[in-house]
Amino acid sequence: MSNTPNPRQFHIHLVSDATGTTLLGLARACLAQFEDVEPIQKFWPLVRTQKQLEKILTQIQANPGPVIFTLVDKKMRERLQDRADELGIPCVSVLDPIMRGLSSYLGKHAKGVPGLQHTMDDAYFKRVEAVDFAMRFDDGKSFDGLKEADVILVGVSRTSKTPTSIFLARRGIKAANIPLVPGVKIPEEYFELPDCLYVGLSASADRLAELRRSRLQADQNMHGMSKNEYLDLEKIEEEVRDARRLFSRKNWPVINVTRRSIEETSAEIMSYWQNFQDKRKAREANEDSQDSEMKAGA
Amino acid sequence: MSNTPNPRQFHIHLVSDATGTTLLGLARACLAQFEDVEPIQKFWPLVRTQKQLEKILTQIQANPGPVIFTLVDKKMRERLQDRADELGIPCVSVLDPIMRGLSSYLGKHAKGVPGLQHTMDDAYFKRVEAVDFAMRFDDGKSFDGLKEADVILVGVSRTSKTPTSIFLARRGIKAANIPLVPGVKIPEEYFELPDCLYVGLSASADRLAELRRSRLQADQNMHGMSKNEYLDLEKIEEEVRDARRLFSRKNWPVINVTRRSIEETSAEIMSYWQNFQDKRKAREANEDSQDSEMKAGA
Repeated sequence: MSNTPNPRQFHIHLVSDATGTTLLGLARACLAQFEDVEPIQKFWPLVRTQKQLEKILTQIQANPGPVIFTLVDKKMRERLQDRADELGIPCVSVLDPIMRGLSSYLGKHAKGVPGLQHTMDDAYFKRVEAVDFAMRFDDGKSFDGLKEADVILVGVSRTSKTPTSIFLARRGIKAANIPLVPGVKIPEEYFELPDCLYVGLSASADRLAELRRSRLQADQNMHGMSKNEYLDLEKIEEEVRDARRLFSRKNWPVINVTRRSIEETSAEIMSYWQNFQDKRKAREANEDSQDSEMKAGA
Repeated sequence: MSNTPNPRQFHIHLVSDATGTTLLGLARACLAQFEDVEPIQKFWPLVRTQKQLEKILTQIQANPGPVIFTLVDKKMRERLQDRADELGIPCVSVLDPIMRGLSSYLGKHAKGVPGLQHTMDDAYFKRVEAVDFAMRFDDGKSFDGLKEADVILVGVSRTSKTPTSIFLARRGIKAANIPLVPGVKIPEEYFELPDCLYVGLSASADRLAELRRSRLQADQNMHGMSKNEYLDLEKIEEEVRDARRLFSRKNWPVINVTRRSIEETSAEIMSYWQNFQDKRKAREANEDSQDSEMKAGA
């Protein structure tokens, strides 16, 4: 029995003094651009001591392959880089070019302390609170306090409202979601909260039917619909039409999620959200200046 | 009324042909390393056409500041870079150094198609399924099918089991969590599923009391505990001790989350998970070779 090595298979090492989350994203983005490769990803987060680094260097030597890293400590960086050079493997420090750009633009030096982005500051607690919020307001579970939401997603069953809410929450955006279920009437006031950005999520009836079939096997939560109604293609088409009618009556932005990943849908919503906030700021600035004009005139 | 510009305040533009998630992480990591700055972040995801890019260039001109970007299309990259040069602002392509490293290591060219990391492939559906799973098995809501979990988090109330499960899910790891509530008996079998990695989450009683007080204001879900029990410091200390006793009896890794962000806790769990999988693979390989030895001996 021969164990032919696979030339397309190689190890890639992600070494970080913080959580390594960004490295995972970068590796994914870059590796996706190469055909016929089967990377085996080795993930080494929270590397903060020379001793930890030495252990990992042993592992890299055992399974050599490209290294991408974020290490702020100078001594550790040099050690990693030197070792990679000896092993003849590429070793890329991903933050360096950005740090250089910012340093020269700001005329300041970087602090050089690892993991500063993970200080448990206001932004951090805002993100945690937003995840909490998304869980509490998932799937129309609660309407009490809904007006605290930044974004409210509205759509029929299986338009990925839940994972999208969660994704937005991880970015610090408080997202609630309201399901549109035939026969279940939502009080109009919940569709007219003035400080919330509403986004309609839509999808093709075919795709929804497919997702619902597989969902039914996993979970029996039916929102008071019968199984036949839930899966009947004509009924679904009607649901989708009704939903679209609501979105256009309310003049909400609509995203068709049929061929779109959660990440892409969320990115688009974050764009809308930036716009929504910019407009609000402009309006407030305008009101402020009217206020002071009035005072000046008085 | 003078409007003195704030020299610490500046715009930073994140331009991506994909979701820009990684750019947000990179910007956060880098900006955290500079003192006394107040960056205003502008987020431009899903930029795929020359027309979209021109619109953004107008916005960048209106609020000039460092640009960090991921654009795969050569023409768009050049246009952005040229315009930034004209405006005299730094402009950093974050994927380039990694792409170069991988290209030379693999002896292959990158495909140059934007957003390939977001193809809705098996890994994508695995991530979506994992978020679904985390929602279904949150907070001991269900035990039916628990053995499908990759990771099971165990801890007393407010040890951030839920947001940690969600974070792991977004990385494709199926995480369930089981709360330890005084007086609520969990059947022993759920603590002994052989294919799951158990991780105990612990925190200082002081911190838990603080978190629980603020939680109570937001939500009244009490798990059958009385309010006094839930907040009494001595009772909490007892809860924490009992939990730690369980963790050590079961020989589970334990993470103290008191001063740790969700991201850091998750990164540590992902390390444990990598280890757990490596050991399993080694064990399976070992069993395989014993099997073939037996066959050879027969």
